[in-house]
Amino acid sequence: MTDTLKDLMKTIGQQARAASRQISRAETAKKNEALLAIAHALELGTDELIQENLKDLEAGKARGLDQAMLERLELNPQRIRQMAEGVREVAALKDPVGEISDLNYRPSGIQVGRMRVPLGVIGIIYESRPNVTADAAALCLKSGNACILRGGSESIHSNRAIAKAIRQGLEKGGLSPDIVQIIDTADRAAVGEMLKLDAFIDVIIPRGGKGLIQRIMAESSIPVIKHLDGICHVYVDDHCDLDKAKRISLNAKTHRYGVCNAMETLLVASRIAPIFLPDLASSLREKGVELRGCERTIEILEDAIPATEEDWNTEYLAPILAIRVVDDLDHAMDHIAQHGSSHTDAIVTEDYGRARRFLREVDSSSVMVNASTRFADGFEYGLGAEIGISTDKLHARGPVGLEGLTTLKFVVLGDGQIRE
Amino acid sequence: MTDTLKDLMKTIGQQARAASRQISRAETAKKNEALLAIAHALELGTDELIQENLKDLEAGKARGLDQAMLERLELNPQRIRQMAEGVREVAALKDPVGEISDLNYRPSGIQVGRMRVPLGVIGIIYESRPNVTADAAALCLKSGNACILRGGSESIHSNRAIAKAIRQGLEKGGLSPDIVQIIDTADRAAVGEMLKLDAFIDVIIPRGGKGLIQRIMAESSIPVIKHLDGICHVYVDDHCDLDKAKRISLNAKTHRYGVCNAMETLLVASRIAPIFLPDLASSLREKGVELRGCERTIEILEDAIPATEEDWNTEYLAPILAIRVVDDLDHAMDHIAQHGSSHTDAIVTEDYGRARRFLREVDSSSVMVNASTRFADGFEYGLGAEIGISTDKLHARGPVGLEGLTTLKFVVLGDGQIRE
Repeated sequence: MTDTLKDLMKTIGQQARAASRQISRAETAKKNEALLAIAHALELGTDELIQENLKDLEAGKARGLDQAMLERLELNPQRIRQMAEGVREVAALKDPVGEISDLNYRPSGIQVGRMRVPLGVIGIIYESRPNVTADAAALCLKSGNACILRGGSESIHSNRAIAKAIRQGLEKGGLSPDIVQIIDTADRAAVGEMLKLDAFIDVIIPRGGKGLIQRIMAESSIPVIKHLDGICHVYVDDHCDLDKAKRISLNAKTHRYGVCNAMETLLVASRIAPIFLPDLASSLREKGVELRGCERTIEILEDAIPATEEDWNTEYLAPILAIRVVDDLDHAMDHIAQHGSSHTDAIVTEDYGRARRFLREVDSSSVMVNASTRFADGFEYGLGAEIGISTDKLHARGPVGLEGLTTLKFVVLGDGQIRE
Repeated sequence: MTDTLKDLMKTIGQQARAASRQISRAETAKKNEALLAIAHALELGTDELIQENLKDLEAGKARGLDQAMLERLELNPQRIRQMAEGVREVAALKDPVGEISDLNYRPSGIQVGRMRVPLGVIGIIYESRPNVTADAAALCLKSGNACILRGGSESIHSNRAIAKAIRQGLEKGGLSPDIVQIIDTADRAAVGEMLKLDAFIDVIIPRGGKGLIQRIMAESSIPVIKHLDGICHVYVDDHCDLDKAKRISLNAKTHRYGVCNAMETLLVASRIAPIFLPDLASSLREKGVELRGCERTIEILEDAIPATEEDWNTEYLAPILAIRVVDDLDHAMDHIAQHGSSHTDAIVTEDYGRARRFLREVDSSSVMVNASTRFADGFEYGLGAEIGISTDKLHARGPVGLEGLTTLKFVVLGDGQIRE
């Protein structure tokens, strides 16, 4: 049984590697044609997609999935239209593959530059939302990569139906259907086998909860581009515009609670805390946000709950805010270095020198001055699309778009030069 | 005992993390001052370095190290001067840290750009040559990283003495000596412990033989930038300039044998093989190169040794050349895709379309037209210095200079913007 799974996974890997050679050299027009055909096939297949999705929804109800999970799992005509539209938007993005930069003559007479090229084969492991199947496939295809997709077992029928539409689109565009393969066995050991395919998969991108990601990090022999925590800070400097500080703090905390770029801890300079905090706190409380504070915060906001050390290290993803009064910029940056998750941190200040220091010295994937942490997003940054937000330091840091799915190789143009 | 080692390694890791915050924000002038002070301390310490190196040489002789190993291990006044000169050259390089690129206004009114920043803490594990201690420390320092260095046990006294000079230079430059730490315990378990310090080390760079690198890949919980194989190809197209083809083939094979960017397999288009191979073979044989060929090669070069499948997958690092006659460009690229190591591959052709295809379609860290594979080198490419050549796809591909020791974070400049 396990041998069969091993063989199956190896076959998928070999097919992906072979297909990656085709898609890596495919012309932009051909890739776009396939993407448009995929979008069309998704829309044409609406009835079938909804039928298959119903099977997942019924199985989910029988398994006792909660309402939020079922809601995320559901496909309806509007969502299918959005999914197709998303694929069309990827078709409209600039093709990153083949771009040559920094091509310069060297003293030896050769020209040396760098060409942007696909990574090869990308493995994506995700949970729940079936639209990831179409999104991820489109981004990989456009960036010249083959991909192997492993969705959650709870959406297996939906994913199969989406994969069928993708396959039709690829074939219509004259490309190999092996460019996008899904692993649709119910066998849970498939993920473990996938993580061993280092000869065939160049990078694994997990999308899901922390448990999934930690398991993948521990097991994978393939490099992983991952998103771990989003413990984002806003530091309100004493030399700030109080209106901006309030607007940004409220937006960063309350625009959406369950997202990785929401503020979890507010740091406030002690000189300004007595003026700033009461006003902000009343607005936050109106929105039902629970406040937890350090001792100095509680001196100002008597109703706040005392924060423990654990609060500074927690990604609430909920209407809860930890507040700490700090001495100054250095104290704030020390707190961020110790408790942050290197995701997104912002300063609110009108002081040029402090803004300049915060930008350079805070070691996070996004560092902001006078803007809401909620802007940390591939669309807001102009990447056109986003496969996730990386909290890694190597390769891709922050929102990952098409460029993050590519790498650079050196190209050398000579005229018979040899090394003396 | 093991607990002591664990504690020691953890302390080193914590000190490195703390020191990395200092060096990441250090001004360029300060870093250069420290580098020049290190170069000076190395030269001033020449006598002591030679004395300590003698201890390693004697221990090496007693342990039966071969002559080549002993030769690589030796420090003499000239080599110490070169080591100091290398550090001065790094001081003269442009500081990559803090550079902001692509800073553009977005429709929301925020400006988004990317800032080049240090990776943090770099762990380097290497064998034999003690000059790596100074080279690696200088590159890490200039790129704003702290580093933890683990040299081979055979050069432990030399490394300690070099580290002492580095420490003096750092202190003279007003920087923390913890920016460069060496692990100088003789305990061989230290490497294993180092590879577990994922909370304190951001990337591991191994420099050494394939055995060392495979062990590190298997054990490390930290991302690794590595160099595995250099199975480099030259493809001689039938539409080529024969003089260039001969010059490049000879240089790629015989300029130096034991280097990763030497040609190991020559691919020749069948139409031109009968004209090209006999002349090249006689020059190669004059230089004492053993020739191993496919069946079609042996029809032309009767004295060549029949090549086996294994020859196509071997990095000889020796005066041996595998030769295969191929049908055409596609056949050559298929061979490279199947047997190459994604290091460096070159085509010799005067055909524009084939050159263009080879450049795009061959998936190697360096792809060349009409130039010797020996050019794949940080200095030849103008990187100024090189910490190694990466055969990975993610992050750094090909020769790795200062830029490869940095990463990009997003910077966002606003004026109170929030997300609606």
